[in-house]
Amino acid sequence: MLLTVDAIVEGVHFERRWLSPRQVGRKGFLVNASDVAAMGGRPWTCVVSLGVPPTYRAQDLRALQAGLVAAAGEAGASVVGGNLSRAEQLFVSVALLADAPRRIVTRRGARPGDSVYVTGTLGDAALAVRWLQGRGPEMGRVPAAAVRRFREPSPRLRAGRVLVESGLVSAMIDVSDGLLQDLGHLCTESRVGAVVHAAAVPLSTAYRSQLGPADTLALHGGEDYELLCAVPERNVKRLQRVESRLGCPLTRIGEIIAGPGLRVFDGAGRRLRLPSSGYDHFLGGS
Amino acid sequence: MLLTVDAIVEGVHFERRWLSPRQVGRKGFLVNASDVAAMGGRPWTCVVSLGVPPTYRAQDLRALQAGLVAAAGEAGASVVGGNLSRAEQLFVSVALLADAPRRIVTRRGARPGDSVYVTGTLGDAALAVRWLQGRGPEMGRVPAAAVRRFREPSPRLRAGRVLVESGLVSAMIDVSDGLLQDLGHLCTESRVGAVVHAAAVPLSTAYRSQLGPADTLALHGGEDYELLCAVPERNVKRLQRVESRLGCPLTRIGEIIAGPGLRVFDGAGRRLRLPSSGYDHFLGGS
Repeated sequence: MLLTVDAIVEGVHFERRWLSPRQVGRKGFLVNASDVAAMGGRPWTCVVSLGVPPTYRAQDLRALQAGLVAAAGEAGASVVGGNLSRAEQLFVSVALLADAPRRIVTRRGARPGDSVYVTGTLGDAALAVRWLQGRGPEMGRVPAAAVRRFREPSPRLRAGRVLVESGLVSAMIDVSDGLLQDLGHLCTESRVGAVVHAAAVPLSTAYRSQLGPADTLALHGGEDYELLCAVPERNVKRLQRVESRLGCPLTRIGEIIAGPGLRVFDGAGRRLRLPSSGYDHFLGGS
Repeated sequence: MLLTVDAIVEGVHFERRWLSPRQVGRKGFLVNASDVAAMGGRPWTCVVSLGVPPTYRAQDLRALQAGLVAAAGEAGASVVGGNLSRAEQLFVSVALLADAPRRIVTRRGARPGDSVYVTGTLGDAALAVRWLQGRGPEMGRVPAAAVRRFREPSPRLRAGRVLVESGLVSAMIDVSDGLLQDLGHLCTESRVGAVVHAAAVPLSTAYRSQLGPADTLALHGGEDYELLCAVPERNVKRLQRVESRLGCPLTRIGEIIAGPGLRVFDGAGRRLRLPSSGYDHFLGGS
């Protein structure tokens, strides 16, 4: 059995004008489902702790709840209880109980020589946030697909289960704080380091059209809810056989090394110096 | 298995100067343990979602965590994970997984004619809050015992287990929002009403010395974390036999009636009109 908890807080993870109440509810569930996906689990049941400002409208609260219940239902889970408290900032904290797979994959099993893979594409949600904040140079022109990735992320439950059940991955984590930050977590827990080939990081058409392939937002943007895993060399060929069952692309972006820390190289083999390795709630910025 | 969630929020459930960081952590766990006590469960494992202002000191956060872990340990549970988010108000939301007893007692089983019992004494925590707010007429003279009841409540886990395992109670709830409000919840879920004899409500020596027996704070004060249960007439005698194993007094305060609503009578048999039936986070006051 798996038990996970995660919260989204207004002003930290989202601004109220960025997400409809229904989307806030969905996202409150999905951030947890993504953690379960990274363990290859099956969401089963959850409880919800809501903090709601006194000015929040009853109809918005109902929509938020409906969004959460719907997202849980799509993932095969039920919402069995909850708690409602007054709060200055809207917050949604969900605790999700899930069936564990027979074998357990954590963040701790990566070994030097393993390949690093990521599902789907990265950076779309961060691009959307930049646009929603009015910070992007291309404001007003961001494709709906990127905004949808931020507003209604889908947890990679199926991919997570297939990868764990295949027995081919040595460590896995979901990418929620940003690729480099979450890869950093995985490496720290596994007591290894990693090399990342920035040019190999999978980008959506929307992202490429807006930022071009050289932009580093996808490396540290956050809110991707993709899966990042390490795969021992001996398993790489067999991995190709399960790829079609993941429901999304799987891309090799680097390899695990013995030393600590992350080294990022561009397509020409130049090492990139990155100002930030992810989103830190306590420092802000992205 | 039981899964419960509850949160305490700064400015709603407490002010930071009222509780040490360690006590905030303890209380974050205990409000959940109290819910489990009302089901007769055994706390097993929990996850914690913390919202922490950027100005909160690291040492205070460690003390908060230590308090939570200690409270969980005392209840036989472990803290297996958590999530930390920036927030303007400190909040602690705990989701607690517990072993369910073989028989399940909910809020729904009360029937007309059942007696209503409550564990321990009521009103001490509310008295302490009045004092902490500087609103009490006897400010500065409130006994430490009452303040301790607010700061370090103990969940009635043992009493809850004994009562549920005895098979003698038809419905149970913990008293967290105030006696009348929580009795109201139990009655609504059971589709019954209740009569409460205010003079029978158990009060501590500290409470009596400060407010006298006629004060109604104990009826709607909140934060008691005692247990309230309904007991069918046929079980009342057998209840006396288990009483010694509860670890606290058990007092008959009223009875379940067929009609809806609560009726409160004083010692002279006069019906009391009460301005408020408990604490509503969204209305404030107590």
